[in-house]
Amino acid sequence: MDVDAAVFDVFGTMTDWRSSVADELADVGSRAGLNADWPTVTDAWRRRYRPVLERVLGGELPWRPLDDLHRLMLDDVLAEHGLDDLGEAGRDTLVQAWHRLRPWPDAAAGLELLHNTRVITATLSNGGIGLLARLTKQAGLRFDCILSAELAKSYKPDPHVYLTAAELLEVEPRRLLMVACHPDDLEAAAQAGLRTAYIPRPLEWGPDAGRVDPPAEVDLVADDVIGLARALGAMG
Amino acid sequence: MDVDAAVFDVFGTMTDWRSSVADELADVGSRAGLNADWPTVTDAWRRRYRPVLERVLGGELPWRPLDDLHRLMLDDVLAEHGLDDLGEAGRDTLVQAWHRLRPWPDAAAGLELLHNTRVITATLSNGGIGLLARLTKQAGLRFDCILSAELAKSYKPDPHVYLTAAELLEVEPRRLLMVACHPDDLEAAAQAGLRTAYIPRPLEWGPDAGRVDPPAEVDLVADDVIGLARALGAMG
Repeated sequence: MDVDAAVFDVFGTMTDWRSSVADELADVGSRAGLNADWPTVTDAWRRRYRPVLERVLGGELPWRPLDDLHRLMLDDVLAEHGLDDLGEAGRDTLVQAWHRLRPWPDAAAGLELLHNTRVITATLSNGGIGLLARLTKQAGLRFDCILSAELAKSYKPDPHVYLTAAELLEVEPRRLLMVACHPDDLEAAAQAGLRTAYIPRPLEWGPDAGRVDPPAEVDLVADDVIGLARALGAMG
Repeated sequence: MDVDAAVFDVFGTMTDWRSSVADELADVGSRAGLNADWPTVTDAWRRRYRPVLERVLGGELPWRPLDDLHRLMLDDVLAEHGLDDLGEAGRDTLVQAWHRLRPWPDAAAGLELLHNTRVITATLSNGGIGLLARLTKQAGLRFDCILSAELAKSYKPDPHVYLTAAELLEVEPRRLLMVACHPDDLEAAAQAGLRTAYIPRPLEWGPDAGRVDPPAEVDLVADDVIGLARALGAMG
């Protein structure tokens, strides 16, 4: 496939948010003397994500950085699970947990392969620039550029986010590849005129989650980031 | 010095724009059958830079990407030097020459040292995001993040550019270090509340250029990027 740049979803596609956040919840919770099924709390936190983004995109809530939305959702989830005793400092730590997500095992090696091709790589996440710069540095994920929905003052799947990425990278949308494990992200990117690559992440919601149906139409399917790099011409 | 992030000027501080652009001018010019003192043409091109930026910042010209300003300045400089015969394709190549600048010998090694510290590194250039992503990839300059005056729809030394960088990186201005070889860049950064580091680049305008006076007040002076990395706590 002949593209000039590839932009990557981060939460789920490049990083294992569920086990990373569940570990930090367990740690902060136990230090506060609290007990819970932490992976379930993590899933509940993440499930509030899409409805909140939809309220922002629908104009019901003003745009604000993802950290702030994470904090609002966390407060609701803790209340819902009888965990109100978790204090202010612990909540701050947990919002920051999204800046420290662990990468999937293939992600760093795949990006290194891509770094040695002519294809420019960038993040394209709903996380902010600061979050993404910290996360990618700590996780050893070598992108050529950090882009965020923040730069469009919006969130994916708003088409303006994908088109802002193309404009900033100075590439035509049809020469820009969106890489994600989420069909809705890829469908929105395709509608904005981008090419699309699907990487399945069957463990995103844990080992007991049901099968995720692949998107109906994509330009490329790869097993992981290493496979994607090879499909884009990387050697090795 | 205790900072959370460091942002770097690129044209001059990290790259040798003069010899890089002069080589491409000589190449494109000789293929067009033209003769000139190419380093002198390069200097004339670059000398038009500040006055044009000042017209944009003064509201006389609308903001536009640096590539477009480079093209306007190039057309004027070629006319001034009797080089009107240089064609459209050659002019496009020369605007793109600023996407391919060679780094100074210490720049890549210094950034690698900084990559292994907790300090987040980013570009902060008047070049656009696309230009900077290509330039840093090709030059092997490993930044954790690519930031540009473009994100503030302005140009340095507008204080809004420095404050936008701090906001996007989620750091307080006084915990953000501006690194440059140009005193005016550092003075504007300091006025915006940033910390400042000066790296002299005596060869920026070629071996015969006069001495550049260091800025009056900076927080740090380093011989090069390797020295800067050590001053910020990098080992090696």
